[in-house]
Formats: sequence, C-alpha cells, structure tokens
Amino acid sequence: MTDWGHYLSHMRANAPLIQNITNYVAMNVMANALLASGASPAMLHAEEEAGEFAALASALTINIGTLSTDWVRGMIVAAESANENDTPWVLDPVAAGATAFRRETSSALLALKPSVIRGNASEILAVCGEMTKGKGADSADSVTEAEAGARALAASTGGIVAVTGPQDLITDGTRAYRVDNGHAMMPLVTALGCTLNGVIASFIVGKPHLEATTAAIAYYGLAGQLAAETTSAPGSFATAFIDALYTITPDQLSDAARIQES
Amino acid sequence: MTDWGHYLSHMRANAPLIQNITNYVAMNVMANALLASGASPAMLHAEEEAGEFAALASALTINIGTLSTDWVRGMIVAAESANENDTPWVLDPVAAGATAFRRETSSALLALKPSVIRGNASEILAVCGEMTKGKGADSADSVTEAEAGARALAASTGGIVAVTGPQDLITDGTRAYRVDNGHAMMPLVTALGCTLNGVIASFIVGKPHLEATTAAIAYYGLAGQLAAETTSAPGSFATAFIDALYTITPDQLSDAARIQES
Amino acid sequence: MTDWGHYLSHMRANAPLIQNITNYVAMNVMANALLASGASPAMLHAEEEAGEFAALASALTINIGTLSTDWVRGMIVAAESANENDTPWVLDPVAAGATAFRRETSSALLALKPSVIRGNASEILAVCGEMTKGKGADSADSVTEAEAGARALAASTGGIVAVTGPQDLITDGTRAYRVDNGHAMMPLVTALGCTLNGVIASFIVGKPHLEATTAAIAYYGLAGQLAAETTSAPGSFATAFIDALYTITPDQLSDAARIQES
Repeated sequence: MTDWGHYLSHMRANAPLIQNITNYVAMNVMANALLASGASPAMLHAEEEAGEFAALASALTINIGTLSTDWVRGMIVAAESANENDTPWVLDPVAAGATAFRRETSSALLALKPSVIRGNASEILAVCGEMTKGKGADSADSVTEAEAGARALAASTGGIVAVTGPQDLITDGTRAYRVDNGHAMMPLVTALGCTLNGVIASFIVGKPHLEATTAAIAYYGLAGQLAAETTSAPGSFATAFIDALYTITPDQLSDAARIQES
Repeated sequence: MTDWGHYLSHMRANAPLIQNITNYVAMNVMANALLASGASPAMLHAEEEAGEFAALASALTINIGTLSTDWVRGMIVAAESANENDTPWVLDPVAAGATAFRRETSSALLALKPSVIRGNASEILAVCGEMTKGKGADSADSVTEAEAGARALAASTGGIVAVTGPQDLITDGTRAYRVDNGHAMMPLVTALGCTLNGVIASFIVGKPHLEATTAAIAYYGLAGQLAAETTSAPGSFATAFIDALYTITPDQLSDAARIQES
Repeated sequence: MTDWGHYLSHMRANAPLIQNITNYVAMNVMANALLASGASPAMLHAEEEAGEFAALASALTINIGTLSTDWVRGMIVAAESANENDTPWVLDPVAAGATAFRRETSSALLALKPSVIRGNASEILAVCGEMTKGKGADSADSVTEAEAGARALAASTGGIVAVTGPQDLITDGTRAYRVDNGHAMMPLVTALGCTLNGVIASFIVGKPHLEATTAAIAYYGLAGQLAAETTSAPGSFATAFIDALYTITPDQLSDAARIQES
C-alpha cells in the first residue's frame, strides 16, 4: 500500500525552490502556502530573467490567470528553460476557454508539454478543445464529464493531468487516482486552486509524478478538512487553512488520505 | 418602505460574474470579498481580451490604483465593450488628483460614462475638477464638502455617484441617499474601498442603480460593524470582515441598514 | 540612553505618506502593515507618474522582487525625484545575486545612493559583489558573514545598510547597532522582509537614519514576538502580527527593544 505521507516528508526534507509565474490574485497566498508547507517560493516572471532562474529552480509553475503579452513571453522562456534542464513544471490553464487570447496562450504552453496540467473540469475540457459551459475561473462541468478528455490529454502530452473539484481525478493517460479529500469551503477562498499548483510542483521534485501529484492534492484537501473543523466562514477558514498546511504531519496524511486507484 | 435586504438576496440568487480591472493591492481581498458575498469574480485586464470578456460578464469594475499605460488601454476597451453590451460598470478614480497621468486617465474613463462612480470626497472633488486637499488614497475632504460636486457629476454622466466616508452619500444627481453603516476600523484595512466597487457591481445587475448601490454600501458597512464586535485590531478585523460578508442574511440587512433619503 | 519608543510616537504623530514601488507578493501586506503602524501607504510605480508622486511623498521604498523592464524605469525616475527633493528612500535588492537582470538593476539603483539599503545577508553580500550562496529570496549566509560587506557598502553609499536575520545589524559604515527582537515564525510569512522596508521608511522621515532604522526594526521584531505569544502557525501568526503593529505603544517599545551599539 502506498505511503502517501512519505511524499510530504520527502518534500519537507528537500525544501525545494519553486518558481511561480502566476496571477496577481494568487501570488501572496501561494507564497504563504508554499512556506507553510515547507517549500521555498520565488516569484519571477520577466522575459529577461525567467529562463535563467528556471535553470536554478527545483520546479516551475505557470498560471495564465491575469494574462498579458509580456508575461506570455516570460512563461514561454521559463517553460523552455525548464525543459532543457529536466525541471518539472505545472501548467494551470485558468479560464482557458473564455477568450481567444487564452486559447492561443494555452495552446502555445501545451505544445511545450508540461509535466502536470491542473485545472477544473471546464478548463480541462477547454484545453481538450471540447465544448464547455465554463465562463470565468469557476467550473460548470463535472470532473466525471472531463475524465475522458483528461486521459486523452495526458496521453498526448506524456504528462499528468489533474482535474480538481469535489472529487479530484489524476491520470497519466493510462492509470488514474481519485481523491476524496477537500471541503466545500475551499472554492469560497480565491486562488486556492492556483495555489495548489505550487504544492504539486513541490511534491513532484524527485518523485514519480502521478503519485506525487495525487499525494499533494490529498494533503491540500486534508488541510481544507482540518480548517473546516474550527471555522465556518471563508475569512477565518483561509487563515486556518494555511495553519493546517503547516501542522499536518506525514503520519496524519497517511492516515487521512482518501485515495483510490481507478 | 424599501426592503434593502432584497437586493442582497437577488444578488446571491444570480451569483453575477464580475470582471474587475483593479489595482495589485486590492486584487486578492476583492476576489475574496466577492466570493464571500455570493458573486463570482474574474480578474482580466489585458487589451487583448478585456473587451471580449466584458461582453460575457454581468458587470465590470475599473480602478486606477496602480496605473500604467498598458492597463489604461485594457480599461478603455473593457468600458467600451460594457457600454456596447449594456453591461453596467463602476469606476473608482483612486487618487485622481495626485498626478497628471491620473487626471488624464480619469477624464478618458469619465467620458465613457460609468454607471457608478465611487470614491472618497477628495477623489470625487478631483474628478469634478475642483481644488482638493487629498494626497494619496486617503481623503482630506469631507463627504459634505463633496455633495454639490457629486450631484453635478452624476447629472453630467447620467449615472450614480457614491461618495464614501464616515457617512456615505449616493446620488443620481436629483435624488440622494445617506448611509450610516460602517466602522472606523475599515480605513485601517487596505483596499476595502476598492473592494466595495465589486460588491456594488454585483448588486446593480438587473436592479435600479441608485437603490442597489445604496444597499451594497449599507451591506458592506454592516459587515464592518459586525467585524468590530469581535475584534479590535486591523489584522483580525480584516478576517472577521470577510466572514461577516458571508454570514449576513437579507433579513439582517433589512433590519440593520441605516439609510435615509435626503 | 536612547528612547526608542519616541521614534514610534514621532512617526504616528506625522502619519507620513510612504510611496512603495514593491513586488506583487508584498503589496497588500505592506499596505496593511503601514496602516496598522500608523503611516499612509501609496502604491504607484509607472514611469509616467512615479517621479511626480515621489515629490509629494514623505519617503519612498523600492523593492526589486517581481522585476520587469518597465518597472525599472519607474524605479529610476522615482529615486531621482526623491533625491532632488531630499526625500529619503529605502532600497531592497531582493535576490540581487540570482540573475544578470537583478545584478544590473541593483547596480543602477545603488548608483543613486539610497538612504537605507535593507536585505538579508546573501542579498547584501551580492550587492557588495562578493560570492554568495543565496538562491531565491531566502538567505544562505549569516548576518555576521555580511558585517564587513555591510560596513563597506554603507561607507560607499553614504547611507545606512541594514542586514536582517535572526539578529539584525544596522550600520552607517562607522557605527552599528544590533537588534535581537524578532521571532523564528517571521520568515514563514511571505513578504515580511519587503514589508519592513515601508516601516523603516516611515520611521526615518525627519529623524537620524541610523537610529530610526534601528528603532523600526526593533518595533517590527517586537510585533513578531507578540504575535508568537498567541499563535503557533503562520496563517494566524500573520494576522496577529498586523494586530501587534497596531497595538504596540511607544512605552512598550522602549521597554522591550533589545538593541546594542557595537
């Protein structure tokens, strides 16, 4: 049986340096979540240095939330540098189907074959080129509806695809895990999806990507469950969530992970 | 007698998609406040997509806090798209009088006739072209001093003008409401004024703008009052404020709104 | 004996307007920390207005955390304007040694002779042109290792250099203070180093820069100590830290400052 807690202890022992090119909404909470989890965050995005820094980082995340043309240039050079250095990287195609600019940017980044793609069901379906009901960053499609697309997408990129929602699905195109950790309060705190990308990036350094991504998502969901035990509104929940990322032990994760291979 | 709580229940029933082109300081708290209130926030600003997205959104907000030339281009196309689609939009002319760049940008946006203009007294006076004592985003003028300017501004744009402060004034140029909800701790948390724009935007969708803006401001002030009942310093107040936006019921708002027509 | 609390009461009595050109991660927490401390923050960075506004501000801070070429232009005009107006300014050379872009930007800003340079040991060593082990914004060098470099740097710029870490060192090149306030939880909250720049800027307005910088760092560290008395994880610690900045009195600072001249 998989020891899911081991992925957390491995990450903390290595305190990986995670470079994040993410949106303005997520930056602060993402840095705090990485510090609380045990990783070392760095936010650098400019074309002038994003590739040079990606060669130093343990892993990279790219998120297209608050997009602009100059940032896209930084994203491309960072992803190319990550690929040249065998550095794993995570793509979050936020609201990928909403505008032409997002569709084009997502395509350009997908062509660089991210190690992990994480999105909600609508975003994953948009990235697959299927019709979708999603408008903004909220999802109008269910994880189950996105499963076939997720498997096909993973098969085509050769990486992992994670569809997050009430139940999460993580697949490499052949095998898949489902995670039932998490809490309904999580979507009421902004940028918690974006922030998860960083935690996934920190877990996959030096570990099999399918299982490490699954462990990261279970750890993150467990933090949501624990935060909901002591709070009942989103402001105090957000604070308790960061606290839980800090206090969860590997043993606690091993005991509480609700993961099934499917 | 107006049922002010109805504006809150109407907003929550519709969960409107609110596009926000706002400053870097406000982004995270604004998204969290909208989620806690019951709306769906989206932050997109680039010229390449801001207009396309505004055609999908239920309402739009524009805030000139951390201004730059490329963002101004996105603001203009978004406001134009909102006007073409009969989508209401809210303008916040932050520190409008402080620099030439702000005066020019405010003028360009005012010419597009925002549905609602919200600012403190100094900002509203600056926008009216009157001499003002304000320096940064803090106000050195009183709401009363700004009343004549606010009424004239509303008459000239054909929209609503809201002057926020210890007492708030909301006018369409002819009629006006005064709101006495709120708490002195609110200006000690950054970006709460900017964040209010999003809440106003969510309330005015499908409702008369003068009353809906008034209801939004009373709801927001009530959240400040409730937060101050359990906290006495700005860090914990900010958390309790988000919690209160989430927990306030329409009935509670109807009971506690301190609104007078004047 | 120095009355360190007097620096806090002087700052609060004047509520100085502090312009901050800082990174996206720090903006919100920095504005909240300045408001809680008693100062008035303003975030403006664009080349079009950064210099014009710096002429109005009481002090300026520049931080190269999330750097890009257009922001560097704003930083330069703001620093030049500050110098022309005898306005003190604080430079934070974040991760100065990590990329060529950072080394060049740091050099250009150093040439403008900041009133105060604040960084961790790795950053100060990088700025001194010495070999360093630092990668991102975290420090791999100790404050002691950086002391000689800090003194030389201060002598060459004619300003103050503050090296922050478990023990802080503040020097004008000749004299130096060491501060033992602070708490180990502080580096687990993102942007607290960046945020300190604003507090330093608010303290040095109209006061001797060496002592005022020292007092600001002791005040800030004391807030960390007080926050750690009631919290034990970084989410709730961050909230309690802002609360402590608000509640600390000048007398409390005078009593609790752990400062030695060395």
